[in-house]
Amino acid sequence: MTKIAVIAGFLGQTRDRFCLYNEVRSPKEKLEAAAEIEGINGVEIIYPYDCQGIELAETLRRLGLGVAAVNVNVKGEPEFAFGSLTSPDPNLRARAVALIKEGMDLARHLGCGRVTVCPLSDGHEYAFQGDYQEEWRRMRDAFAEAAAYAPDVTLSLEYKPSETRVFSTLPNLSAVILMIKEIGLPNLGVTFDIGHSLYAGEHPAQALAMLYYHGLKPYIHVNDNYRNWDWDLIAGAINFWDLLEVVWTARHYGYDDWWTFDVMPARMDPRSCFATSAKLLKAIFAAAKRIDAKELERLRAATRGERVPRILTYLWRAVGIEIAEEKE
Amino acid sequence: MTKIAVIAGFLGQTRDRFCLYNEVRSPKEKLEAAAEIEGINGVEIIYPYDCQGIELAETLRRLGLGVAAVNVNVKGEPEFAFGSLTSPDPNLRARAVALIKEGMDLARHLGCGRVTVCPLSDGHEYAFQGDYQEEWRRMRDAFAEAAAYAPDVTLSLEYKPSETRVFSTLPNLSAVILMIKEIGLPNLGVTFDIGHSLYAGEHPAQALAMLYYHGLKPYIHVNDNYRNWDWDLIAGAINFWDLLEVVWTARHYGYDDWWTFDVMPARMDPRSCFATSAKLLKAIFAAAKRIDAKELERLRAATRGERVPRILTYLWRAVGIEIAEEKE
Amino acid sequence: MTKIAVIAGFLGQTRDRFCLYNEVRSPKEKLEAAAEIEGINGVEIIYPYDCQGIELAETLRRLGLGVAAVNVNVKGEPEFAFGSLTSPDPNLRARAVALIKEGMDLARHLGCGRVTVCPLSDGHEYAFQGDYQEEWRRMRDAFAEAAAYAPDVTLSLEYKPSETRVFSTLPNLSAVILMIKEIGLPNLGVTFDIGHSLYAGEHPAQALAMLYYHGLKPYIHVNDNYRNWDWDLIAGAINFWDLLEVVWTARHYGYDDWWTFDVMPARMDPRSCFATSAKLLKAIFAAAKRIDAKELERLRAATRGERVPRILTYLWRAVGIEIAEEKE
Amino acid sequence: MTKIAVIAGFLGQTRDRFCLYNEVRSPKEKLEAAAEIEGINGVEIIYPYDCQGIELAETLRRLGLGVAAVNVNVKGEPEFAFGSLTSPDPNLRARAVALIKEGMDLARHLGCGRVTVCPLSDGHEYAFQGDYQEEWRRMRDAFAEAAAYAPDVTLSLEYKPSETRVFSTLPNLSAVILMIKEIGLPNLGVTFDIGHSLYAGEHPAQALAMLYYHGLKPYIHVNDNYRNWDWDLIAGAINFWDLLEVVWTARHYGYDDWWTFDVMPARMDPRSCFATSAKLLKAIFAAAKRIDAKELERLRAATRGERVPRILTYLWRAVGIEIAEEKE
Repeated sequence: MTKIAVIAGFLGQTRDRFCLYNEVRSPKEKLEAAAEIEGINGVEIIYPYDCQGIELAETLRRLGLGVAAVNVNVKGEPEFAFGSLTSPDPNLRARAVALIKEGMDLARHLGCGRVTVCPLSDGHEYAFQGDYQEEWRRMRDAFAEAAAYAPDVTLSLEYKPSETRVFSTLPNLSAVILMIKEIGLPNLGVTFDIGHSLYAGEHPAQALAMLYYHGLKPYIHVNDNYRNWDWDLIAGAINFWDLLEVVWTARHYGYDDWWTFDVMPARMDPRSCFATSAKLLKAIFAAAKRIDAKELERLRAATRGERVPRILTYLWRAVGIEIAEEKE
Repeated sequence: MTKIAVIAGFLGQTRDRFCLYNEVRSPKEKLEAAAEIEGINGVEIIYPYDCQGIELAETLRRLGLGVAAVNVNVKGEPEFAFGSLTSPDPNLRARAVALIKEGMDLARHLGCGRVTVCPLSDGHEYAFQGDYQEEWRRMRDAFAEAAAYAPDVTLSLEYKPSETRVFSTLPNLSAVILMIKEIGLPNLGVTFDIGHSLYAGEHPAQALAMLYYHGLKPYIHVNDNYRNWDWDLIAGAINFWDLLEVVWTARHYGYDDWWTFDVMPARMDPRSCFATSAKLLKAIFAAAKRIDAKELERLRAATRGERVPRILTYLWRAVGIEIAEEKE
Repeated sequence: MTKIAVIAGFLGQTRDRFCLYNEVRSPKEKLEAAAEIEGINGVEIIYPYDCQGIELAETLRRLGLGVAAVNVNVKGEPEFAFGSLTSPDPNLRARAVALIKEGMDLARHLGCGRVTVCPLSDGHEYAFQGDYQEEWRRMRDAFAEAAAYAPDVTLSLEYKPSETRVFSTLPNLSAVILMIKEIGLPNLGVTFDIGHSLYAGEHPAQALAMLYYHGLKPYIHVNDNYRNWDWDLIAGAINFWDLLEVVWTARHYGYDDWWTFDVMPARMDPRSCFATSAKLLKAIFAAAKRIDAKELERLRAATRGERVPRILTYLWRAVGIEIAEEKE
Repeated sequence: MTKIAVIAGFLGQTRDRFCLYNEVRSPKEKLEAAAEIEGINGVEIIYPYDCQGIELAETLRRLGLGVAAVNVNVKGEPEFAFGSLTSPDPNLRARAVALIKEGMDLARHLGCGRVTVCPLSDGHEYAFQGDYQEEWRRMRDAFAEAAAYAPDVTLSLEYKPSETRVFSTLPNLSAVILMIKEIGLPNLGVTFDIGHSLYAGEHPAQALAMLYYHGLKPYIHVNDNYRNWDWDLIAGAINFWDLLEVVWTARHYGYDDWWTFDVMPARMDPRSCFATSAKLLKAIFAAAKRIDAKELERLRAATRGERVPRILTYLWRAVGIEIAEEKE
C-alpha cells in the first residue's frame, strides 16, 4: 500500500496575511476528516497545536490512520517570532528544544518514529541584522541536543529559503546537509518539501538525488508552486515534469516512506483538495513505473544533439500523451 | 510640511501564515499611537476594520492627524476569499462595491477626498481556473460604478502582481492604466506602492514617470522588499537608489501629496519602525533636492560610454558619500 | 493544415555570453534545413541577417516554405547597443525605422504581410539612467512612422521584460497594448512570445485572453522557460499546462495563424529539436481539442470548493493521463 | 595598499546573445588598458584566451600589475558546450582537467598562486536529462585531480546557480562547501562572486560569513545585479547595503586579498567603468571602517523591537547620510 498522508492542520482553518480560509476544526475533527478522504491513509500532526484535548493514539487507531510524522512547530508562539532555535536568549532556545523533545516522545508513543522541524522564524531581513555564524552555531547545538535526546526517533530537518524570515538560517538542500554532517548523529534526516526545493531555485530531482548521495534519508512533502513563493498548491498542477521526476527518483533510490501533502486548501474544500491530490499523485506513480531506468540510460547515451528530444518524447508517451511516430 | 502618513492597521496586531506580531490595539489606540510618532502627521485608515466603535473625525482632529486615504478592504471578509470585485456572484460584487461607496462617503466626511482599493483576492492560481476577460469586465464595472457614485472623491486603484492570489486581475502599472482609460472617469487614480512595483519586476521610477505620462494622479505607498515578495520592509533599507529615484521623480513631476508607509512592523516596535522610517525618508528627501534636473540632463548627454559612471558618481556624492576626485 | 514555423536563425550558429552552439549556416542552408524538418512548413526570417546573398522568394517557393513573419532586428548592429528606437540620436532612430520599413517591403514581397519587432536594446540598467517618458515617446513615434509607411503590412510588436537591457521600454503585455492604443493605427499587432510572457511574471493564457479583449491580433511565438529568464527551451517541457491553456485559448478566440518556434537549440541538433517540438505541439493541439468550453464552464460553476479539483481532474484526463474514477 | 583588480577579458570585446560591446583588444592591449586605470593595480587573467601571443610575466612586471588569479575557462571551447568536468566522455574531462593544471602552472609562474574555475557549462535544462550523482562525482574527481597536481597553488571554485546551463552542478555556497569537504584537500578555496551570491538567492554577507565558518578562504569577485540574473553591473549601484556588509564582513574576518571586478562594461567605456567602480568601492571601504563591531553588537542587543531601526540609523550615518537626531 502506498503511504499517502496529509498534514492534519490543513483540514482546519488556515490563513494568510489577508484572509481566513475554511472552518475551524478541533484536532479530533481534523483527524476524522482525514480518515474520510479517499486515498489518504495517514497524517502528519502538528505539535503542540493538533495534540491538545485529544487521545491521539487511540483516535488514530480507531480511524485507521497512520502517522507520517510529528511536526514540531517552533515558530507559532509569539515568543518565537524573532527566532527560536537561533535566539540570543538561551531560555527561548531551551523552550524550543524542549518542544522538539516532547514531539520526539510523542512520535515514539505514536509509533511513527519521526519528528519533522522547519525552523521558519530563524533568519533575518536586513543587512547587518544578524550574527550569521553564531546563529548557525545555536541552531546546530539545538538540533544536536534534540537529536541526542532520542536516538530511536528520526529528527527530520526541513529547509526553506524564506518565509516568515526573508533569509533563513537553513535555506536549501546543501545547507541542511552541511548542518547534519556537522552534528554527525545518525538519527538526523531531511524533510524534502518539493515546493521548498522549487522555491529555493533547485531542480527538485537533482536535490533529492544529492540527498541520497550523501547517505541521508528523506521524508517527502508533496506540493507545488510557481518557483517564486511557497504557495503550497496541488502537486503536478504546475510543475508536472518535476513531480514525475521526483517520484521516479525517489523510487529509483528505494524510497518506501510516506508521501505527505503539504498543500494549503485555500479556496478549496480540504477533502476534495486532498482526494484529488491523491488521485493525481497515483497517476504520477503509475507513469513513473513506465519510465525504465535502462531505457533512460540508453536515451541519455544518444548522440549529444539527439539526447533531449528523445528523452522528451519518451516521457510524454510514458504519461499517456499520444505522440506521432517518427517517419523512417 | 511634508505629509507623511502610516497605515493605521500596522500599529496593531499583524500576522502572516505562521506568526502573530505585536499587540492587539483598538482603532482608537492605533490612532493615538500614530499621533505620538515623531515625523508622522497622518494616517491611512482601513475601512471597515479601523472605523468601528470610534468617532473617527473627532479623534483625528483631537490628535492632529491628517487622513491620507481611506483604504477599503474588499478582501478580508471570508465571503471575499474567492474574489470580490470579480466574483461570478453578483451579490458578492454588489457588497464589495457597496463597501467602496461607504468608504467614499467616509473619505468625504473626513475631508481627505480619497479612497484606495487593492483588490487582492481577485485573481487565480491554476491553469484554466478563470475566465480572464469576464473577470476583467466585472472588475471594470465594479470600479466604474463606485467611481461614478462620488465624483468628488478620488478612487485610487492599487495594483499588485500577486498575494493572496498567485496571479492578480490587476497585476501591474500598465494594467491599471488600461483599466482607468477603459472606465474613463476623471476621479480614478493610482495608488503607487513602491514595493508592489518592485515586486512586479518594474523599475519603480520608470513606472511612476509613465503614470504621469498618462496624466494620472499617483498616491504613493512607501516600503521596500527584495523584489521577490511584498515584504513591506523599511523603505531604503534594501533598494536605496530606487527610493531616491522615486522621490526625485515624484518631486520632478510635482507630487505634493501624502507619502504613506505601508511597512509591516513584524518583529519591530511599530512606533520605532515608523519614526525611523520617517527619518530615513526625510534624509532621502534632502538628498533628492541635491540632484539637479539640469545637471542630470547634462550627465545623460555625456559621451555614451561615460554616461553611467558619471551619473553614479554624482548620485553617491548627492547622498553624502565621499568619493575621491578624479585626477586630471 | 496547421501552420508551424521556426525562426530560421536558430538553424544556424547561436551563442550566449560564454559559448557558441552548432554550425554556421548560410541563409540558404538554414532554409533548406528548415524545409527538411518534419512538421515544419514555414519560417520566420531575420532581416537583414538572413536575407543577404539569397533569392528569398524563389528559394522559399522552391522549398515549399511559408513565411510566418519577417523579424526585423533593430538591436544587432553595434551602433544599436545603447538603444535604437529610443536613442537620443535622431539619426540612429531613423536608421532603425528605415530597417523596419525595408522589412515591411520585404514582407509584402514575400506575401506574408507581417513584420515583427522586438526592441531588445531599448531600456536601461541603473537608477537615474533614462528619461523614461522621452524614451517611450521616441519608441511610439518610431513605431507610428513605420506602421504608417505600409498600412497593408502588420507591424507586430514583441514585448519582453529584459535582456539585453535590464529594464525594457516595452516590458509586458499591458505596456504593449498601451503603446498600440496610443499610436492608434490598425495594422499594429502583438507578437505574443509565450516565454516572454512567463518571464514577465504573467499567466500566459490570461495575457493572451486580454490581448483579444483589447481587439488586438496576436502572432504566437512558442517556447518555454523556468519563468526566471528567456531560456527559449522546448515548449511544454517545463510549463506543460500553460502551453495547453495557451493553445486552447488561442483556438477559443479563433487563432488560425502561425505557431512559430522561438526555441534556441543550444546543445541540440536543430533539426531534431524542431521536429520534436512540432510533434509535442501537435500532441498539445490534440489534447486541447478534447477540452470542451461548455464543460469547462460547467466545472468552473461547481461549488466553489470543488472547482479547482474538478478542473484538474478533467485536464489530466484530457491529455491522456489515467485518473482513477471517484467512488460513489 | 588595497588590492583591486579587474578581469582582463572585460577590457576587450564582450557579447551577449544579441549584441557585441566595445572594441576587440589583444591580450597585451587589455593589460595596457588595465594598467592605465586609476585605482586598479591588478588583473585576473583568462586562461587560455588572454595568455596567447604575449609574454605575460614580463608584460605584467613592466606595467606594474599584480595578478589576482588565473581564471581557467573550461566552457568556452565548442567541445565543452555540453559540459566539461561532468561530461560522460572521459577524454573531454581529461582535457578540461589538463587546462586547469596548465593554469595552475601559469599561476605559479606568475607568482599569484591561485587559479579560479567557474564550471558554467556543467549542469542541465530538462527533467530526466542528467544523472546528477554521477555528474557530481565526475566534477569532484576532476577538481580532486587538479588540486592534487599543484598543492602550492590554490584552486578556487566559483559557484553559480545557472548560465549557461539552467541548473548548475555547483549552484550555491553550501554546495561548493560540500564539494570541498568531500575532496578534502587544503589548497581548495572558494571564489565568492557577490553577484552570483545575490543571484543564488543568498544574503551575500551571510554566505561569506559561513564560508569563514567552515574554515575556507574566499577570493572575492565584485559586481552587482537585480538578484534575477548575473548582470555583472557596477557594484553598489543596486544593492548598496549588501556591498557594504560584504566589505565589512570580509574585513571583520581578516580578508586582505584581492577585490576583483567581474563587471561587464556593456554600453560603457571599460576604463571609465572600472575607474568609477574602484572609486565607489573605496568609498564603501571607508564607510565600512566607520562601522564598529562592538557598537554593532550593542545595537543588536537592543530591545528586540528597537534593534533594526537603530541598526539602520547607524548604518545610514556611517555612509555619510545625514539623519536627524532623535528628540529626547
